[in-house]
Amino acid sequence: MIKNTLKTYPLFSECDDNFLESLSRQANVFDAPKNKVIFLSQEDANNFYILQKGWVKLFRETLEGTQAIIDVIPQGHMFGESCLFEDDKYPFSAEVIESATLISLPISALKSEIEQNPKLAISMLSSMARYRKQQDKELEHRTLQNTPQRIGCFLLRLVDQNAKGPVTIHLPYDKTLVAMRLGMQPETFSRGISTLKKATGMQVKGSTIQLDDVSNLAEYSCSACSSEFPCKSLKTTQNF
Amino acid sequence: MIKNTLKTYPLFSECDDNFLESLSRQANVFDAPKNKVIFLSQEDANNFYILQKGWVKLFRETLEGTQAIIDVIPQGHMFGESCLFEDDKYPFSAEVIESATLISLPISALKSEIEQNPKLAISMLSSMARYRKQQDKELEHRTLQNTPQRIGCFLLRLVDQNAKGPVTIHLPYDKTLVAMRLGMQPETFSRGISTLKKATGMQVKGSTIQLDDVSNLAEYSCSACSSEFPCKSLKTTQNF
Repeated sequence: MIKNTLKTYPLFSECDDNFLESLSRQANVFDAPKNKVIFLSQEDANNFYILQKGWVKLFRETLEGTQAIIDVIPQGHMFGESCLFEDDKYPFSAEVIESATLISLPISALKSEIEQNPKLAISMLSSMARYRKQQDKELEHRTLQNTPQRIGCFLLRLVDQNAKGPVTIHLPYDKTLVAMRLGMQPETFSRGISTLKKATGMQVKGSTIQLDDVSNLAEYSCSACSSEFPCKSLKTTQNF
Repeated sequence: MIKNTLKTYPLFSECDDNFLESLSRQANVFDAPKNKVIFLSQEDANNFYILQKGWVKLFRETLEGTQAIIDVIPQGHMFGESCLFEDDKYPFSAEVIESATLISLPISALKSEIEQNPKLAISMLSSMARYRKQQDKELEHRTLQNTPQRIGCFLLRLVDQNAKGPVTIHLPYDKTLVAMRLGMQPETFSRGISTLKKATGMQVKGSTIQLDDVSNLAEYSCSACSSEFPCKSLKTTQNF
């Protein structure tokens, strides 16, 4: 039941049942195949979305068609809700990159509830502050970390940071997209992987990566970061 | 009078006089010389600040002492207020880079007012959304623009975008800091400036830059950006 799904999100933790029931009634659950565009940048922002299954990329394009990936949204996460405060236009486009199930919800309902319920406004502020922290970190990494360190940091987000002994990592989506997510050309990404293999002893087979130990990779990547390992800002897969 | 200063900020536009008066009484106005540290990353976030005069940099450091500049705050702007939602710790350090006059204000007062005044919560959400948009743009630029284009974009933020004919730009702070703000090594910045001079005909003397026309520089820099020139996201000098 959609109401129960909504309840699991910190954003809605301070909302009463009446609001969640009314919001659920306006929800629309739908499947979308790979390459389906959910919305385009500058379109009217009428809905926000919960991604129940699959992957979605958020991106912008220059006039010449070059893409910048803003974010890659994993299963369980919400997107588009911040458009509420951005002139009611989507500031990026959203496209499915692995067949997805989504719940669309009207932004107007969220807006009117925020105006009446200060607790929801504060939950929204907290979730925006979390996002801001992640973006700050991303900008810091683009400044301080070199290419292999940034790939290493990406991989460390996919593992249990307290694991002892050998660890297997599966890339969540294809390498070209990982490179784009990290703001790199595919060739730069490949060279970075080669450097990482030599420096940390990690082994790569297709989209599977094996490490003898997490600590080697952490030592290599986190030396150019202002946080210590294990680090809080790696925890990006929690519900929004 | 501080109350009148506070009133000019969009953040406080929906606050009543009682709150602004009480906040003003808790304000502390002080001068700080160059290199004065206002607060350090991970210290308890007790205050937020309005910079009345001068420049302040926000930064983080790795264990090895390498700095990443998060932002350079110009006169008239506010900083530290978002720490309210970040575990009550400053997520970055702040240091004066050109002798400054600041107003410090208690975060606790802002917090309790936000909990009671939904309109203030919404103003806060709007200002966080504006910041989010700027950060998104910065990340996009680090991905899509090359070094000279990013320098060009930085310069375009300093001019009247609708100006016709010759334009003179004064760098707001020294070149090393501009380079750091843009996440570049000083050598990379110098090479970028040389390329820009050849490509756009701009002339550089110390910290003064002359352009025959804004459009050359805009054409060069904005071709690798998803916004069109003149662009809304260049307007970063408005009050927060």
